[in-house]
Amino acid sequence: MTNDELLVATAVNFWNSALSRADKLFLNASEKELEHPVAPGKNRLIYLWGHLTAVNDSMISLMGLGQRLHPEFDEVFVTAPDRTAVKEIPADEVRKAWTEINAKLNAEFANMKPADWLHKHTAVSDADFAKEPLRNRLAILLSRTGHLGYHMGQAIFAGK
Amino acid sequence: MTNDELLVATAVNFWNSALSRADKLFLNASEKELEHPVAPGKNRLIYLWGHLTAVNDSMISLMGLGQRLHPEFDEVFVTAPDRTAVKEIPADEVRKAWTEINAKLNAEFANMKPADWLHKHTAVSDADFAKEPLRNRLAILLSRTGHLGYHMGQAIFAGK
Repeated sequence: MTNDELLVATAVNFWNSALSRADKLFLNASEKELEHPVAPGKNRLIYLWGHLTAVNDSMISLMGLGQRLHPEFDEVFVTAPDRTAVKEIPADEVRKAWTEINAKLNAEFANMKPADWLHKHTAVSDADFAKEPLRNRLAILLSRTGHLGYHMGQAIFAGK
Repeated sequence: MTNDELLVATAVNFWNSALSRADKLFLNASEKELEHPVAPGKNRLIYLWGHLTAVNDSMISLMGLGQRLHPEFDEVFVTAPDRTAVKEIPADEVRKAWTEINAKLNAEFANMKPADWLHKHTAVSDADFAKEPLRNRLAILLSRTGHLGYHMGQAIFAGK
């Protein structure tokens, strides 16, 4: 591998390690465990899972990899705080979407060359990107992996 | 900048963003706030801060950038769970070490070329690294940034 391929592979490895830890926690949680808040009065585990699913889904469009798969998650798990959404999305649908979205992202990542990671993301203008070239797809991957870890630090408290 | 320089700069930016958020939370916390547990029965904020300081310090030696500055933090903030260490390290010493260690790391990072990030870290053998080239300094930077975010997700709960 070339140096830039190794740098990208290290970053994708960081993402996959974080996803594996999340898989282990969420996919093994029972329906009852998913209803536990992470601390008294805080988000339930199911809300965090749905929230992380919505954020991963939004990476598809933000990275310019096509249309996101489940925009309907946003109003339940991003816009609305936990326990306030007018409708619910059950755990088996969250589970299915989480798996589907992460598979889509990883299929796209497998086809990306190092230079592809340096393309601007879709929330930055051409003019701004010319001045701020670090607002690229790799920055999205890293910040979203960081965000996943942030909520995993909370999720680990659920029911304990 | 070349592609590999841009990839590295994006990763270092991720690290610095995470550090800035931690600075904002910890440097602005009062001594009293630092005594708050992040949730009932969980680590106090001062413990998390000391723990993150110790982990950042260990990056110096793990990345082969010289001797770490505060190995004495480990027995208080890594080996011992919160409230069990035989001695305490006061908040002003944690603050000073945190600032000093992060300045040292960032001074080293500023001098590193992209290829330098692909050197093996010191906890992997030459033989293992030949098979697993992703066990490099960049992997340490990313995993430790993820670890910082993980505990920041908890720290944000303190006193709330």
